[in-house]
Formats: sequence, structure tokens, C-alpha cells
Amino acid sequence: MATINGNYNNLAAGYLFPEIAKRAKAFLEKNPGIQIMRLGIGDTTHPLPKELIARMKEGVEKLAHKETYTGYADNSFGMARLRKAIADRYRGWGCPIHDTDIFVSDGAKPDSANIQSIFGLNNVVAVQDPAYPVYVDSNVIAGRGGTWDGIRYAGLVYMPCTEENGFFPALPDKKVDLIYICSPNNPTGAVATKEQLKAFVDYAIANKAVIIFDAAYAAYISDPSLPKSIFQIKGATSCALEINSFSKEAGFTGVRLGWTVVPQELAAEDAVPGKIQTLWMRRQNTMFNGASNIAQEGGIAALSPEGSKGCKAVIDYYMNNARIIKQGLEKIGIKVFGGINAPYIWLQTPGKMDSWQFFDKLLTETHVVGTPGVGFGPNGQGYFRLSAFGHTENVQKAVESVQKNLKI
Amino acid sequence: MATINGNYNNLAAGYLFPEIAKRAKAFLEKNPGIQIMRLGIGDTTHPLPKELIARMKEGVEKLAHKETYTGYADNSFGMARLRKAIADRYRGWGCPIHDTDIFVSDGAKPDSANIQSIFGLNNVVAVQDPAYPVYVDSNVIAGRGGTWDGIRYAGLVYMPCTEENGFFPALPDKKVDLIYICSPNNPTGAVATKEQLKAFVDYAIANKAVIIFDAAYAAYISDPSLPKSIFQIKGATSCALEINSFSKEAGFTGVRLGWTVVPQELAAEDAVPGKIQTLWMRRQNTMFNGASNIAQEGGIAALSPEGSKGCKAVIDYYMNNARIIKQGLEKIGIKVFGGINAPYIWLQTPGKMDSWQFFDKLLTETHVVGTPGVGFGPNGQGYFRLSAFGHTENVQKAVESVQKNLKI
Repeated sequence: MATINGNYNNLAAGYLFPEIAKRAKAFLEKNPGIQIMRLGIGDTTHPLPKELIARMKEGVEKLAHKETYTGYADNSFGMARLRKAIADRYRGWGCPIHDTDIFVSDGAKPDSANIQSIFGLNNVVAVQDPAYPVYVDSNVIAGRGGTWDGIRYAGLVYMPCTEENGFFPALPDKKVDLIYICSPNNPTGAVATKEQLKAFVDYAIANKAVIIFDAAYAAYISDPSLPKSIFQIKGATSCALEINSFSKEAGFTGVRLGWTVVPQELAAEDAVPGKIQTLWMRRQNTMFNGASNIAQEGGIAALSPEGSKGCKAVIDYYMNNARIIKQGLEKIGIKVFGGINAPYIWLQTPGKMDSWQFFDKLLTETHVVGTPGVGFGPNGQGYFRLSAFGHTENVQKAVESVQKNLKI
Repeated sequence: MATINGNYNNLAAGYLFPEIAKRAKAFLEKNPGIQIMRLGIGDTTHPLPKELIARMKEGVEKLAHKETYTGYADNSFGMARLRKAIADRYRGWGCPIHDTDIFVSDGAKPDSANIQSIFGLNNVVAVQDPAYPVYVDSNVIAGRGGTWDGIRYAGLVYMPCTEENGFFPALPDKKVDLIYICSPNNPTGAVATKEQLKAFVDYAIANKAVIIFDAAYAAYISDPSLPKSIFQIKGATSCALEINSFSKEAGFTGVRLGWTVVPQELAAEDAVPGKIQTLWMRRQNTMFNGASNIAQEGGIAALSPEGSKGCKAVIDYYMNNARIIKQGLEKIGIKVFGGINAPYIWLQTPGKMDSWQFFDKLLTETHVVGTPGVGFGPNGQGYFRLSAFGHTENVQKAVESVQKNLKI
């Protein structure tokens, strides 16, 4: 008698973004002809730089010829050229990363979800609150969530990110084992300073904890004093791994390409240096079969001088959108955060109104779809995420509609 | 103090294929200049049909224009056009499959590995012996393996596939909950008949078990009396799910594209019809982000009339290789199985010699790399897998080398 993984029954609600899609669809069905403006999901919309297009077409063409055709690679970790190009970037920032510390994947989301599986079920997990839902949901599915009380999972440690602490948390007030940190942060748009990260690295070393650092938006940092990688903090290779992606840097949300850095030095209570890297190698070789070879050619192009110039131009385009949203909302007295070194604007709902209520209000009054802050954790209540991805003319229209039609 | 998932320590050995690569590499280092002939990993080598190349280039070109650019899809299940094309094929075989039963992924390997995660840890798992290692390893990592006694995992039920039963197992002799069946079989090349599958479907319905059917080589079946899908068996939608792939059918081992059929009707002891499909939807939406949009365009092309004609020609090419291997080995008195409706030749080692010993012997004497049968399970001991993938001229050379140089 086959039975299901009962942990799924502990999941609080449907995954956030499909729920948003469902509500938007229902609105459209009730209001046919209305043009919805989407500032919801953090999804890229801009065409890819031509360097990337050309290289991926070459990647396809390679598959048309016996001499250049490739099937499975020797392992699931990515092309050597791509691993080197990624590691080179880290080394350029002064991070002691080897090519073999880089594990190419089909994106930051699967890696964020799967990384917990190489750790024991008894690890206490700490997450920023609010946080990208995948950290919480993947741990709940694995069985680390404990009971859901309607607001929080009893088994998780929530690290509040609030206006008071500039949306970067204090160290956990109890001993924790796995710590998820996302910077630049999704959803708040806050970016950790070197000093803030150093405090967590020191904590992790002292407590033999492991930091899972999500840097998927690192390419959006323009302030040179802010760290783009946790490995810019001394000692981090012994206590942290880092997840990143080509999705937002190169517009690869649909192409699917990311990577995780698991340093050789990384250790844990019952794992000598090298062991955790070996576990991730084993996990990827057993349960994954490499990222698409076409996407990997595109990734190599994105890291080339020409390609990265093209990617940078797209990022500037989105960051101009961020400025439009930020300034446009501030003009009508809405309090906004983020949007300077990250493509997300974190707004305080007028009167700290319930996030989902504001979602419905914004949709009904202005036809703009955003993301309810509470969907990212209890401390997201009264907040709302807007994304800078989109075509500027649409972003402008959306902001104008909010300015004109939102009844505050 | 972070700790690791101790189940990894229960894994018997390194994943099979990296181990083979390691031994081949060591041989090459000791014997520089020698040309190794690979009939080992089941990896495609033939260029893709031009229809697929053209369509994937169009897929890349779409990403170059604002009007046709796509990022994330609404869900992680695949493009509607592709899901429909796949479901249409099943319906063409008389299987009652809906478009929404199809879940597109980045390949059969990740799906084979991840599918167990939606089931409870107390399910008793039955595998064919020998079997594709991912079924066993993913369950061991999840914690269903129990102790390893040097040959078998105490927690798994092994269903022997032997010369006597034509390499298709009898029903399990005890009650099991999850049953992995692969047909056409990797590694034995055996294909289950409708009657054989019906017996398992009846067993699963009677015992509320779930069959995980791996049909990744279905496109290699030429005998019209043999089932290409378990859903050709009446009642199977209530007790089975099916995993398949474009890897071997369309040469997509490097492009990465597969699918899993989770029928709406599928039920379990504690899951009404619909529930298991919902769990897989939740799993994929939380831990996966869709297959590459470029690969999906290629998949649509592979299922088109022109594209599938091209794919069929490549399959015929490989099956001609299979014939060359089979007949070539039979000529020198080696007993071989499979290779008729599957791209694998399963040979009995001379004198039922130890599989790894034969690996070393074959490599040293003939410079041919194959796959030790015991790597697929204890009943693979004394057997050896050769793969029909490869360029015909190389396959011919390899067979000639075996004929000439193998000391039997």
C-alpha cells in the first residue's frame, strides 16, 4: 500500500506564484478586455544580448555535426570552460575558489531546493523573514518544518528583517545549523554589507553552522563597497556555499542555467573539509544529468567581455525601471525600500494593510499585479514586492496607473 | 553544528559511470596512444535531425526579440504545445492520457531520482535486479535502503531478472508498495509483453501499490505486439506513473528534455485520485523551474511528422549497430541477449566471469569499454552491457577487436 510523503500536507499553502497567477486569471475572466500590468514575478522580459544569441545558435549547430555533437558529459557538473569562467570571476573578486568548486546546474531554484538534501534531518534551519519561499518549502517537504501554526513553522528559526534593522537580520538568538541568507535580497531588495556578512561567517565558524548564500541578484549591485559574493569575506569558504544563476544576470529565466559553489574547504560537524563537496558531487551525479549544452554555451558567452557588456546594458535597463517605480511611488507618499542595488522594490502598504488585501486592491483599482509580502514570511505582512523586470513603457504605465487610481 | 545526511554513507560505491570513466582514464594514462573504443555509457553520438536543429535555432532566435522572448512559464510543467504533442502520442496508442497528466522535465534521470520524494519513507521499494542504478541510489539517499550487506540493501526488495525468466521478473514474493519497472530494459535489453505488464498492474491494484514505469527506450521497440507504454494496459492509470525522455529518442542526452506522466486517476493508500498528481505538481513548482525553452522547441519538432521521421532514421542507425554487435559476438560463441527492441546488448561473460574482471580484461585485451553487469545489481554478476550508441565504423572496429583479441 503506497503512501505519500506526509510532509506535503504540512505545506502552508500553494506555492506563492501559481496562487498569484490564479488570482490574476480569475480577475481577467471577470473583467474581460482589461489589460493587466505585471510587476509580480521577478521574470526577465528583455531580449538577450546578440552575443549570447549567436553563441547559442552555434551551440545548436554543433549538434548537427558528428565532429562537434555532444551528449552526456563525463559528470553532471558542467563544461570545464564554463566552470573556469565562473571561477575566474570569483578569483577576480579575490575569492579563493577553484574551478572544481563550481557546480553548474539548471538554475538557482532547483539548487536552493535540493541543497538541503545533503544535510541531516536534525539540522536546525534559520531563514530570513521574509525570504524566498523555496528555502522554507523545501525544508518542510524534507521534514524539518515541524507544525504550522497558521503563521510560522515550529521547527524553523525565523530571523526578522524589518525596517528597524534595515531588512538584514541580527544573528539568530539560538543555536542553528543551516542558515539561508539571500543578498541582494529577494524580496526586500536589501544588500548585506561586508561587516554584516562577516558577523554571520564568524557565527557559523564558531557554531560549526553552514551558510547557504543565495547571490542570484549579485549582478545588480552597483555600489563597489558591497560584497557580490560571501567568499569576499575571509574564512567563508570553510562555512558557506553559494548559489547563483544566469537567470537575472543574462535573461536566462527560460533558458535555465545556474551554479552552486561548494568550496573544497567547506566542513561540518561530522564532515571533514572535502566531504560536503563530495556529497554534492554524488547528489548531482545521481539525481541530475547536467544543464543543457546549448544553455551552457550561452553561459560562456554571458561571461565573455562582449557578452557581459550586453548583459550589463540589460541590467541597467531594469535598474532604470526600478528607479521609475521607486520615485513614482515615493511621489504619492508610499514608503519604499530596495530598488538601488537590487531589482526589487519593497513597499510598505498604506497603513500597513494586509498584503493580500493590498494585492486585490492594487489589482482592482490599478490593474497592477504585484507580490504580497506576507507570501515571503510573517514579517512580510504589511509589505508588498514590486519587480523592476518588464518593458519600461509598461512599467511607466503601471506606475502612472497606481499614481492616478490607487485610493490611499 | 551542521551535520550531513548520513544516508549518503550507506551508498555502496561511487555512481557506476564515473567509476568506469575513472578506470578508462587510468588505463589511458598507463597506455598512452592507445585508442579506446567506447561501448559503455548509453550515450547518443549521432547528429540531430535537421528539423530539430532548425526549430531549436528558431527557439534561440525567439529570445532575441521582445515580441517572442519568454522567461519563466506560468508553471514548471512544460509548454502547452509540447504537453499536448506528448499526450497525443499516448492517445494514438489508445491510452487515456490528458494533456495535464504530462509533466515536462530536464530528463528521465532527474525524474527517476526525484519521483520517490513524493512518497512516504515507509514504502517498501521493489526494483528489478539488475536495474538502472538511480532507482536504488535515490531511495538509499532518501533513507529507504536499510543496511548494505556488500551485495544488497536490506530494505529493498530485489526482483531477479535472469536468463530463466527471460530477464523479466516474477511478481514480488512479499507485499511491496513502490515498484520500479524499466521496459525496454536498461541494462538487459528485455522488453515486457502486455501479459507481463498486466500481471504487475493487477498486483498493484490489488495491493494498492504504485508502479514507476521507465519507458525511456520505448522508441526502440519495433515489434508492434510489444507495449510502448504501461498505459496500454487497462487500469494502469490508477496504479502507475511513467517516465520517458527525448534523450535516446531524439539524441537529446546533452540538450536535456524528458517527461513524466502522472495520471489524474493515480491513487495510493492515503491518496485519493488526483492527490499524487497534485503532489508532483507541487514538487515541480517548488523544486524545479521548467525545462529549457530552447530544448522544448526541439521536443515539439521531434514529435512533428518530419522530425519524428528524422529521429526514426537515427534509431534505425543505432539498431543496425546493435545487430552488428549481437551477431559479431554470437559468432565467437558469446551468449547475448537484448539488442532487438532495445539499444542494449546484455552478454554473459565467458564462464560467467566476474563483471569487473571482464571489464578489465576487455579493456586490456581489446581496448573496448563496456559496463559491468554487476554495477546494475547482484543478478548482473557474470553479465556485461554493451551499448549500440556510437558511430557504426567505431562499433564495427570494436566488434572486430573483440573477435580478434579477446582471449576466451
